[in-house]
Amino acid sequence: MIQIRPMTPEDFERFWPTFQAVVIAQETYAYDPALTQEQARDLWMKAPLHTLIAEEDGQLLGSYYLKANAAGPGNHVCNCGYMVTDAARGRGVARLMCEHSQQLARDSGFLAMQFNSVVASNEVAVGLWSKLGFETVGRLPKAYRHARLGLVDCLVMFKWLADEPVAKELAQPKLIGRKNIESVVSRPRRK
Amino acid sequence: MIQIRPMTPEDFERFWPTFQAVVIAQETYAYDPALTQEQARDLWMKAPLHTLIAEEDGQLLGSYYLKANAAGPGNHVCNCGYMVTDAARGRGVARLMCEHSQQLARDSGFLAMQFNSVVASNEVAVGLWSKLGFETVGRLPKAYRHARLGLVDCLVMFKWLADEPVAKELAQPKLIGRKNIESVVSRPRRK
Repeated sequence: MIQIRPMTPEDFERFWPTFQAVVIAQETYAYDPALTQEQARDLWMKAPLHTLIAEEDGQLLGSYYLKANAAGPGNHVCNCGYMVTDAARGRGVARLMCEHSQQLARDSGFLAMQFNSVVASNEVAVGLWSKLGFETVGRLPKAYRHARLGLVDCLVMFKWLADEPVAKELAQPKLIGRKNIESVVSRPRRK
Repeated sequence: MIQIRPMTPEDFERFWPTFQAVVIAQETYAYDPALTQEQARDLWMKAPLHTLIAEEDGQLLGSYYLKANAAGPGNHVCNCGYMVTDAARGRGVARLMCEHSQQLARDSGFLAMQFNSVVASNEVAVGLWSKLGFETVGRLPKAYRHARLGLVDCLVMFKWLADEPVAKELAQPKLIGRKNIESVVSRPRRK
């Protein structure tokens, strides 16, 4: 059975070959392919609010991070990144992690999730996020230099997460006020 | 005559009241309104590649920063932020700084400029960026908690800057290859 739990620095050691392969491929992530293991660990584990792994019988299958996508008046929107090991591809690990991250985001007080730069040629990811309820709300022309395809577009994908019907603000005026939003948003983020 | 030059730490002292007022207003920037002066200086001067001021007869009129919007295969797209002092409003300082930043971006080797989160209710900014050639390529629903208006949308605005016709990649196949792009992009960024 696949389990999802917080990542430890030792887990990152095991995860590093996957991270490195993904970044060096230059097909999906806008990370510097020359990142050292330490820089990568800081980026993946230190900057985010939460970093988790998916594993089964002690075997690492993938990892994801969750963080606020902006500060202050934008900190009700979070951002996540997911990576799956080569061996675990096609087993639904990305879907599982994305579903897990949406619940974790809600539990952490976020109201929405945004992917800033989904490489448009990454059809598997675009298809999966769409199936999981993310809307393509933007298209960045030629924003990514794909190693094989050259300049390709990136998509901005967005999903409103809150259980409360804050999306229907006109019908629910009591929920628009900043005070109400902040009461939802300003829960302590770290457990 | 208005001049634009690199910002010094002393300039930031003079700029701080403007920065603070903009951030506390919570109408345009997604910065934490509780930022200290030191944190704000790091954000505005240390994280970016360039930070400049506009001044006239020693009077500070505004400031802007320029930085890469992403790393690795996304580092040909830059991002800027602009702030104008209250006293200098309506004098075209934002336009001047934005035009200056586009040239600086080209000179620094960037191929495009992206604004990740223009608060949709900030009609002056949206109108100005549109006039200066930025296209609205995305709309983030309710991504900003406006102090007066509650949840409002943000726009993603984008402008291709390169003089070379790399935008017409189908007509110019020689320009798509990663090697060609990188030769444009990997110029040293700091002078």
